[in-house]
Amino acid sequence: MDKPRRICIIGVGLIGGSLARALKRARFCHEIVGAGRHAAHLREAIDLGVIDRAETDFGAAVQGADIVVIAVPLGAMEAVFRSLAPHLGVNTVLTDVGSAKAGVVQAARAVFGSVPPRFVPGHPIAGTEQSGVAASFAELFEGRRVILTPLRDTEARALGLVRAMWERAGAQVSEMDILHHDEVLAATSHLPHLLAYTLVESLARLGDRDEIFQYAAGGFRDFTRIASSDPTMWRDICLGNRDAILSVLSRFSGDLMRVTEAIDSGDGARLLEIFTRAKQARDRQIK
Amino acid sequence: MDKPRRICIIGVGLIGGSLARALKRARFCHEIVGAGRHAAHLREAIDLGVIDRAETDFGAAVQGADIVVIAVPLGAMEAVFRSLAPHLGVNTVLTDVGSAKAGVVQAARAVFGSVPPRFVPGHPIAGTEQSGVAASFAELFEGRRVILTPLRDTEARALGLVRAMWERAGAQVSEMDILHHDEVLAATSHLPHLLAYTLVESLARLGDRDEIFQYAAGGFRDFTRIASSDPTMWRDICLGNRDAILSVLSRFSGDLMRVTEAIDSGDGARLLEIFTRAKQARDRQIK
Repeated sequence: MDKPRRICIIGVGLIGGSLARALKRARFCHEIVGAGRHAAHLREAIDLGVIDRAETDFGAAVQGADIVVIAVPLGAMEAVFRSLAPHLGVNTVLTDVGSAKAGVVQAARAVFGSVPPRFVPGHPIAGTEQSGVAASFAELFEGRRVILTPLRDTEARALGLVRAMWERAGAQVSEMDILHHDEVLAATSHLPHLLAYTLVESLARLGDRDEIFQYAAGGFRDFTRIASSDPTMWRDICLGNRDAILSVLSRFSGDLMRVTEAIDSGDGARLLEIFTRAKQARDRQIK
Repeated sequence: MDKPRRICIIGVGLIGGSLARALKRARFCHEIVGAGRHAAHLREAIDLGVIDRAETDFGAAVQGADIVVIAVPLGAMEAVFRSLAPHLGVNTVLTDVGSAKAGVVQAARAVFGSVPPRFVPGHPIAGTEQSGVAASFAELFEGRRVILTPLRDTEARALGLVRAMWERAGAQVSEMDILHHDEVLAATSHLPHLLAYTLVESLARLGDRDEIFQYAAGGFRDFTRIASSDPTMWRDICLGNRDAILSVLSRFSGDLMRVTEAIDSGDGARLLEIFTRAKQARDRQIK
């Protein structure tokens, strides 16, 4: 594979900025163009050395790009596809970093008529509770998983190029069916975020909220770290992965109801069984 | 205050062992006696230099102790009170480290007839997901909060001695009403543990559980760290703080239902509002 000349990253925030840094460090391409609506954000990315060139005009941004990476919140995907559509080169590979894939593919279909064979839907499972280019760092994807969800018509060359890009950024790349991806992520990422947001908001509405948080220990801090994540991004994920999220929420609520009943009836054996299975699963899987 | 001669710690695990280490480091007393049912565990505590002397006979253990600290799971409190009762000296101060206080006080009342004036119920808000003396460390309580929940009849001298002990271990000590303590802890500690246990157990029962955990990112690992906690301890907390836990569980379930409805109806504005309030509360309170 020839070294790509130019990568265009649309949305230079935590994810887009970290990818730019990682690709620069790996000398994956000759030039990284950053694009976005806010000139000031792009200026910051230039000043930090994250991108080589900044464009607020998406047509100019994608000009001559071998790969265009869309790293904007899910809710902005369709509008970005629409702005790009007239300007994409015939060989330009397109990919995204959205946390739920069915909605992104649907947006692509709505804009392009059918999903372009050179569009490779992708999702790096990495991030922090921070956002913005100032929080980006080149090591974000090291050892992390990136899931690509190619369709039947996706070009092998496009898939290979996007895979190579993420591998050079340090990630382990795997492929998955779109719906399966959305179900797995609803369970392991979207649901925990919803529980953390709901818990913190619930406590914040208590009258003695300042006191409540004073007595929170390390466990609470870790548990609720993800409640500091970007609200807009998570609103978009909830709307964009609605069905899979509702399904895991329903399952979880039923399980929580059974735990509640065990506490209510003083069923210590049942509680011990549930807690033990959870501890075993976590100790085994999450090392 | 004279330097205490002897502290007896019943239950030399993560909490008891860490307290022993901290008090030894601070030269708070002349001798630390560790007591428990298992000679092998006590042997380990001696070998690690955590305690000076080990006793499996509780009568011998509390002999001449200025303070007896009960650091056993909540479910074992009443039995320990019963074993100690005939042997406690007339000036011996008694305290415990239980995570829920109403049940402990009730157990003391059951055994002693009324709550002894030299019993100071206490709760260090500190811990890790580990357990056992091998996981103990002298710094566990540094900068952490310890809540004491004295009753109307609690002796000022006893309260002062227990406060001094925890302060020397590095903790910030405050006092609180028993029921208020149990409500605050149900919200900030017991509920998060239940959510983490329930989530991990729920996912572990999915058919593709090994795959599910593979795609868990850092957020999930932090969120579920507390699901690796000791199941017996948490069973006891659920049974020992039943009413306060059921109350916060009911509140939380209602809030989760409202989030579910907002997702179901595509109410992005409502979701954004909830997530934003949560993020603000966490960013403000948990630094």
